[in-house]
Amino acid sequence: MFASRGLLRLGSSVRLAGAARTYVNLSKPSPSVAVLELDRAPVNSLSKEMAEAVAAAIKEAEGDDKVQALVLKSSNPKIFSAGLDITEMNNPEVGRLEDFWRSIQDLFLTLYGSRLSTVAAIEGHSPAGGCLLAMSCDYRVMTEGENFKIGLNETKLGIAAPYWLKDLFIKTIGHREAELGLGLGTLYSPSEALSVNLVDQVVKNEDVLKVAMKEAETWAKIPPKGRIASKVMLRSEMTDDLREKKELDVGWFRDFIMEEGTQKGIDAYLKSLGGGK
Amino acid sequence: MFASRGLLRLGSSVRLAGAARTYVNLSKPSPSVAVLELDRAPVNSLSKEMAEAVAAAIKEAEGDDKVQALVLKSSNPKIFSAGLDITEMNNPEVGRLEDFWRSIQDLFLTLYGSRLSTVAAIEGHSPAGGCLLAMSCDYRVMTEGENFKIGLNETKLGIAAPYWLKDLFIKTIGHREAELGLGLGTLYSPSEALSVNLVDQVVKNEDVLKVAMKEAETWAKIPPKGRIASKVMLRSEMTDDLREKKELDVGWFRDFIMEEGTQKGIDAYLKSLGGGK
Amino acid sequence: MFASRGLLRLGSSVRLAGAARTYVNLSKPSPSVAVLELDRAPVNSLSKEMAEAVAAAIKEAEGDDKVQALVLKSSNPKIFSAGLDITEMNNPEVGRLEDFWRSIQDLFLTLYGSRLSTVAAIEGHSPAGGCLLAMSCDYRVMTEGENFKIGLNETKLGIAAPYWLKDLFIKTIGHREAELGLGLGTLYSPSEALSVNLVDQVVKNEDVLKVAMKEAETWAKIPPKGRIASKVMLRSEMTDDLREKKELDVGWFRDFIMEEGTQKGIDAYLKSLGGGK
Repeated sequence: MFASRGLLRLGSSVRLAGAARTYVNLSKPSPSVAVLELDRAPVNSLSKEMAEAVAAAIKEAEGDDKVQALVLKSSNPKIFSAGLDITEMNNPEVGRLEDFWRSIQDLFLTLYGSRLSTVAAIEGHSPAGGCLLAMSCDYRVMTEGENFKIGLNETKLGIAAPYWLKDLFIKTIGHREAELGLGLGTLYSPSEALSVNLVDQVVKNEDVLKVAMKEAETWAKIPPKGRIASKVMLRSEMTDDLREKKELDVGWFRDFIMEEGTQKGIDAYLKSLGGGK
Repeated sequence: MFASRGLLRLGSSVRLAGAARTYVNLSKPSPSVAVLELDRAPVNSLSKEMAEAVAAAIKEAEGDDKVQALVLKSSNPKIFSAGLDITEMNNPEVGRLEDFWRSIQDLFLTLYGSRLSTVAAIEGHSPAGGCLLAMSCDYRVMTEGENFKIGLNETKLGIAAPYWLKDLFIKTIGHREAELGLGLGTLYSPSEALSVNLVDQVVKNEDVLKVAMKEAETWAKIPPKGRIASKVMLRSEMTDDLREKKELDVGWFRDFIMEEGTQKGIDAYLKSLGGGK
Repeated sequence: MFASRGLLRLGSSVRLAGAARTYVNLSKPSPSVAVLELDRAPVNSLSKEMAEAVAAAIKEAEGDDKVQALVLKSSNPKIFSAGLDITEMNNPEVGRLEDFWRSIQDLFLTLYGSRLSTVAAIEGHSPAGGCLLAMSCDYRVMTEGENFKIGLNETKLGIAAPYWLKDLFIKTIGHREAELGLGLGTLYSPSEALSVNLVDQVVKNEDVLKVAMKEAETWAKIPPKGRIASKVMLRSEMTDDLREKKELDVGWFRDFIMEEGTQKGIDAYLKSLGGGK
């Protein structure tokens, strides 16, 4: 519970213990809405520790019975999240790679299945894993600016989204648009994302948090019993399925990433960025 | 068969036997189209007896081999149906509550799985169970007037739609809009309902029956063999599934309604209306 | 492989061996894109031999490792394909009828499951089986001209589309529109088809091949590994299911077509065309 830890005041932030503490900021600007700020410089990429920190913060927010909604935002006004930390997949140690993938599965299961109504305040770029975070929420507000992009561009990197992310994409934008978007690795501008229902609203940068908070308050006012029962009914098929296939999915991911062809592609991509291990 | 009973002439109405007789009016204004008028004052709410009367009238219409289409309308020009009769769920006797739910399941299975092409002439309000009736048809024409509302507002009453109504909602308006509509308990105005495909046409109040009849005649002209085979193919997965899970679903409904929290919510709602047992 | 046969030059065409050779023309106007022209006068109707020829040509194109995309076009600028050859279903010999249906299943499985990105250049009419061919591709460009029609009009002929074609229709245009389109046997004009996402672009007749080639080049540039993995993930559920139910589906088709009522309908239809056996 927020209150029992004495940490939460209006606008205050919770620092989690250990490795996670610098990656997220949790605050409670209103009695029923918490705000989780992604804060892993420079681009909120999802390493194992970042994924664990975000999942832990969601559970922290859920622990306060008064909280009914959660806004997910970024500390970087131009990037919501750049997605999976690609260095986790570059010549990885196999055990670490598997644990990394489990942390991504757990983050999805925690966010998508949360009892809280979740609103993504998508401030800027949100490709791949960033798009996964946004789609796992109940509502999406994106910052305008046609240079910002959101989508699942995995095919362009020579990889494929996991099956459950494909299913989430289909549920969000429909089967036909998901085929196009996955096959071509489309990154949508905010107005394109709005037209295919990948986001629900596009607003000015300075308004994105305000609008997200307003939407969160709207969801928080719905009597929780029916709202949560409806959410479980709509989402448990996917979460139950992934829980059952978790280790299978870990194996698929590991085998795909460890293939020589995949590693060559990742190497080339990182060199193009001036990075790599 | 209508004809064998000698009851049907142009515009005439069938009165069913027993308790049902004052709840529905069945007529046959054209050789291949029957009209079923919901007529339980004041708001066509679905009690056990009303649900049984509507299902019986659909079967009556199906019994006439010449009839290929059915228009479902209301005797009240401002309310199609207010949905489930909430007094059935207010401090109910358990056996009656279970039988009530079976009558709702049977009405859905009868209407959604009918061999007839069914057209809803949605005259005014159509929340919750009223929306269920409309979505179970093949085609929906709604009366204009932005004060009229249609949708599944169960969450706002502290309850949740049954899983098969959630599935029907998804099939009608798509997964993404269904998540929003169920989670927020959205009641759509006619123009909003049109924009999300919850209804197929919005027309002036004085035209709704005429337009519904015209659509029914169009469906009635399709050769029945292929039309019915297509309908069975599209709908039998859902009806087969519910038939298999009927008693499970009765149990879920009973347990949810009998919970103290649900009863308190219903009590409060009825008091706000000045009603209750 | 195209190259090893020494048959392919820019714009050249492959003639397949035997009965198939007059039905399709396969060419390779660019290093990574092949073009398959349907060429069975007068209307590219799908007989057993035509279906086999098209499937064989797709496999031929897949055999060239450099080819990543395939454009499917017609030799007739006004008709993409009229669909199944109805004479195959008119008082057929049972064994031939079953083999005919297997050839249609195999064509669907080959085209829908192809490792190639496939683009339909829909030049004119494309009803029933023609719509099946188009929907089995990854992208659809249709010629403008409101007299041209595309859709699944089976119900109007007194028959029903097979269950897997119904599923493909739902995946393409969504459940609600598929219910309307199948039930009413709707044939959509190009602009209507665009508005329900049955086609992705509508262009002038003289531009359709150019636009289709451009789209094919776009798909061909996506790294194949991730693109194919995504396509398999999106489509294998349907292809695996049909592979498992193939003989069941053959039986359903055979029994439906052999019914006296169906034969009478087909006879009447053929007489209205001045044809028949």
